[in-house]
Amino acid sequence: MPDKATITTYFQSLQDDICTAIATADGSEFTEDQWDRPGGGGGRARVIRGNDIEKGGVNFSAVHGVLPPAAARSLSIGETETNFYATGVSIVLHPKNPHVPIIHMNVRYFELDGGRSWFGGGIDLTPHYIDREQARWFHRQLKERCDRFHPDFYPRFTKEADDYFYLPHRQETRGVGGIFYDRLEPGYEGLSKAALFDFTKAVGETFAPTYINLLNINREKSFTEQEKQWQHLRRGRYVEFNLVWDRGTKFGLTTNGRTESILMSLPPLAGWEYDFKVAKGSPEARTLNALRKEMNWVE
Amino acid sequence: MPDKATITTYFQSLQDDICTAIATADGSEFTEDQWDRPGGGGGRARVIRGNDIEKGGVNFSAVHGVLPPAAARSLSIGETETNFYATGVSIVLHPKNPHVPIIHMNVRYFELDGGRSWFGGGIDLTPHYIDREQARWFHRQLKERCDRFHPDFYPRFTKEADDYFYLPHRQETRGVGGIFYDRLEPGYEGLSKAALFDFTKAVGETFAPTYINLLNINREKSFTEQEKQWQHLRRGRYVEFNLVWDRGTKFGLTTNGRTESILMSLPPLAGWEYDFKVAKGSPEARTLNALRKEMNWVE
Repeated sequence: MPDKATITTYFQSLQDDICTAIATADGSEFTEDQWDRPGGGGGRARVIRGNDIEKGGVNFSAVHGVLPPAAARSLSIGETETNFYATGVSIVLHPKNPHVPIIHMNVRYFELDGGRSWFGGGIDLTPHYIDREQARWFHRQLKERCDRFHPDFYPRFTKEADDYFYLPHRQETRGVGGIFYDRLEPGYEGLSKAALFDFTKAVGETFAPTYINLLNINREKSFTEQEKQWQHLRRGRYVEFNLVWDRGTKFGLTTNGRTESILMSLPPLAGWEYDFKVAKGSPEARTLNALRKEMNWVE
Repeated sequence: MPDKATITTYFQSLQDDICTAIATADGSEFTEDQWDRPGGGGGRARVIRGNDIEKGGVNFSAVHGVLPPAAARSLSIGETETNFYATGVSIVLHPKNPHVPIIHMNVRYFELDGGRSWFGGGIDLTPHYIDREQARWFHRQLKERCDRFHPDFYPRFTKEADDYFYLPHRQETRGVGGIFYDRLEPGYEGLSKAALFDFTKAVGETFAPTYINLLNINREKSFTEQEKQWQHLRRGRYVEFNLVWDRGTKFGLTTNGRTESILMSLPPLAGWEYDFKVAKGSPEARTLNALRKEMNWVE
């Protein structure tokens, strides 16, 4: 049964491998910033200001200590003082070219004193311009990984992504979704802790080749000033989701989390326009029309 | 005693006067967008994409109907179904030149069936680069207006602004503050409803001359690409405050408010940089050092 040291070491090497793959694809390098958490543990933030990646972050962390009361409440585990251990890798990449999508990945492991533990994570894609064929291919990568473990995983976790990455005040999904899951405790759907760890690895290792393929398909496409402006507006929506609706961001910012790590996800430049209207039948209009739950991208 | 019709008409003319003054100073024009609220009432959004004002909004609204349960809870007035009437003017102006400050104003009136009513509002300033002398002058304008009504108003309301316009996750104030007040019910500090309405007018009418003076002092200053980049980062903080901490924004977005009106306050372009460091002794460092509560700007 994988213990927290094994899982932590794996996440560190996952961060290394993803950074190497992305840096090579981009022809640039990450810079590293090691940080400590006052209550225990710390992390390695790796950030990139590259050629194709305008701004990106790949963060590894492993933190521990007494579970803050707010965290205990949000996990519904009562008020007893408990020690916790949490480790994971979080990624957001904002590309320069508006035809390359934004991507987000998170894989994490959480353990409480007394034995309870679980995995969580997901990958989701936010194209500035939705390409149906690419969205389908992206979802098929995820489905293929999920199907190796359980036939219900993909349909269940893609629905969770649709429900989670949603902006009620815009009545829009953040992007074309992907998968999102949490609280996969040993025994979930009959899977052992080792099998759930393998699932986590499969998700983590899907990230780099999947994104690099999407990068390569789109990176050389030309774009106009108008398309760059549209990208800024879409990034504005990304900011709105992360700051208003994302539970992790809200939780971190209101419980004295490490602000720079939490807000690594924000874009280099984002814009807002009062009541922006897209031209009927334009690629922008087609994208807006497709930002709906249950688009069933995989079909 | 001023009734809601009188107050509403006054707010409409205040919007007109402010728009005329700002448009004249800027040499451009506002465009108007009238909107209806499904539950009752509506508003006039006026937006500007000007010469000196890169993006601004001056919104008038007068809405009424059954008080939504979430609003009743946030006002701590119990669960009884009540009708409400709310009217006000809200402004945020984002200038092009980073040496011109961002400004925000709100004046509002709220009335519940059964007779309770109150005024709220305030003006606060968010310079990208703090100029101590200008901050002092700005605060003195506000203090002079407050002092006409009660000697405690300025010290009390400027402290409320410092406490309200604060980003705990950055340990920074949003800017140099100003005044902020709420729930001024008839009888507050011995003032009649008519006197509180006069105070509201004094605040509202301070806005245009005060801001236009700051605009005129700074609009012709040259600025570098680096200063424009700093402006984007400061605007990023403005976005963080509004989306994470501002009670009105949060309330509006989570209770099906009119998104475009609520988010009129957001900048045309804002930026984020991982762990951005300012050079020691630079104007940026001096600004950061001054973003603290209780700077006592008026002295």
